[in-house]
Amino acid sequence: MIRVLFAAGEARWQTYRHALPAAFARAGLEVDLFTATDAPESVDYIVYAPGDTLHDFTPFTRARAVLSLWAGVEKIVGNETLTQPLCRMVDAGLEEGMVEWVTGHVLRHHLGMDAHIVNPAHEWTPVAPPLARNRRVAVLGLGELGRACAQALAALRFDVAGWSRTPKDIPGLTCLSGAEGLNAALSRAEIVVLLLPLTTQTGNLLDAGRLARLPEGAVIVNPGRGQLIDDDALIAALDSGHIAHATLDVFRVEPLPRDHPFWTHPKVTVTPHIASETRADTASDVVAENIRRGEAGEPFLFRVDRKQGY
Amino acid sequence: MIRVLFAAGEARWQTYRHALPAAFARAGLEVDLFTATDAPESVDYIVYAPGDTLHDFTPFTRARAVLSLWAGVEKIVGNETLTQPLCRMVDAGLEEGMVEWVTGHVLRHHLGMDAHIVNPAHEWTPVAPPLARNRRVAVLGLGELGRACAQALAALRFDVAGWSRTPKDIPGLTCLSGAEGLNAALSRAEIVVLLLPLTTQTGNLLDAGRLARLPEGAVIVNPGRGQLIDDDALIAALDSGHIAHATLDVFRVEPLPRDHPFWTHPKVTVTPHIASETRADTASDVVAENIRRGEAGEPFLFRVDRKQGY
Repeated sequence: MIRVLFAAGEARWQTYRHALPAAFARAGLEVDLFTATDAPESVDYIVYAPGDTLHDFTPFTRARAVLSLWAGVEKIVGNETLTQPLCRMVDAGLEEGMVEWVTGHVLRHHLGMDAHIVNPAHEWTPVAPPLARNRRVAVLGLGELGRACAQALAALRFDVAGWSRTPKDIPGLTCLSGAEGLNAALSRAEIVVLLLPLTTQTGNLLDAGRLARLPEGAVIVNPGRGQLIDDDALIAALDSGHIAHATLDVFRVEPLPRDHPFWTHPKVTVTPHIASETRADTASDVVAENIRRGEAGEPFLFRVDRKQGY
Repeated sequence: MIRVLFAAGEARWQTYRHALPAAFARAGLEVDLFTATDAPESVDYIVYAPGDTLHDFTPFTRARAVLSLWAGVEKIVGNETLTQPLCRMVDAGLEEGMVEWVTGHVLRHHLGMDAHIVNPAHEWTPVAPPLARNRRVAVLGLGELGRACAQALAALRFDVAGWSRTPKDIPGLTCLSGAEGLNAALSRAEIVVLLLPLTTQTGNLLDAGRLARLPEGAVIVNPGRGQLIDDDALIAALDSGHIAHATLDVFRVEPLPRDHPFWTHPKVTVTPHIASETRADTASDVVAENIRRGEAGEPFLFRVDRKQGY
């Protein structure tokens, strides 16, 4: 019997108490799943998400892995008590939802939809937008989510450049990397999508200097992490007109505080961290597969590199 | 020297006077292109669009074809003086633009974007939308444009059913046809896209009875032709709440009259016939190819079947 501690919060438990056992059964695993234990030294695996009361991983001396239900692990990767292998969540449902949100909002800005959704003067100005093939988009971050979004946009014929810290080669996609590549990606981007992990290197990536590199009238779409952007610099760039619009799904503090200037800024769209979410059924299959791998002595899927932070 | 009359309006001439000669040169055709002639019997081909002063095709006794710059030919197909072969425009740019507009507005409704674009109460309700794979879309009309849009939506994993009058078989797509198929397509559709040609059979296709077949809360997206919908029946269905929203790009009268109730209806989005447009450079290549075919005695591309009306 494999002993699994669910340490991902009470709200999530209401869903996962059903989804995880179903996934374990599909994987042929015999699991004792619980949310609290008096014998931490007997726990084999920990299913984790931020917001849980678990902060000290020291007592879990036998645990073979901590399996995150979140794709981003920035809230746990620096925890010095966590010495066990840590795995991120890479969920098909999460990826599909992200592709839909990103594709939708990129098309929204590409097509200039807002002017028709809110059109109190009933303006009839029949000017068709340019074709996607003539619209330059940059996707910063080419992990599973960034790559999937970049490929979906390229399939719609957008002129897409992807950027990642280290060089990548993705068929059908212009891939840039490194500091020079970032400047090149920014300087051509009419629409920028941020899908980078939050690390010590990516915090405030879009600061005043990099915002200034974007062409006049650029649009920012951020479903990644709020900390990737310097909020004050963004507001200044919106106010000056250099940046035309920002559609933001993630924020430094969530829910976005009611007095935050993003709420009332006419050039900002706030979506409440809904770009995508891990879906319990598909995520539970990923957890089950990693436990199967752990038991079989096979390498874990999506194991975090502590030095890189993701 | 091939003699080609441009009868597609003065505004279009300003673009096509450059685009057509360039396309003729690419195709290796020697063409005399003009907008008026005293010798109609010497004209070989007529490039046509509605709005031109040409209404009587009788004097063009030698013309081998009338080449429409519009995809929809309902304004000319019933002209009894037009006995020459008539070809529709099927332009790659037109198709790409239509795919972008349709995909964008379907994603907009799928994701519930409007509630975030206009959110005066600053509501933070973090409920992610369902996945596209769980969203049922119907595309009515499986000509070049309908097929391309249905395939793009299916590539994003929407649960798409396409409908056409006569049976079609398109890989990766559920294809319905005939009267029963139309009822089946409507009764399952959370989002309906209209891309049918306007014919005697498709006028008022979405009347009160067919609107009632749609599930409660369905959304209508019409980039096809305004006459496909019974306007009064649509407004009644929106007012009753049975239909949640209509995004309309085409209207019985364009520009949409300033006193038309669509302008002020809270559940209607008006876009000013911009879903797509024929692009002069790519369309000119299609015109040149059909002239080349006519000169070579090969069958024309996109020739209209007068009985079907498209």
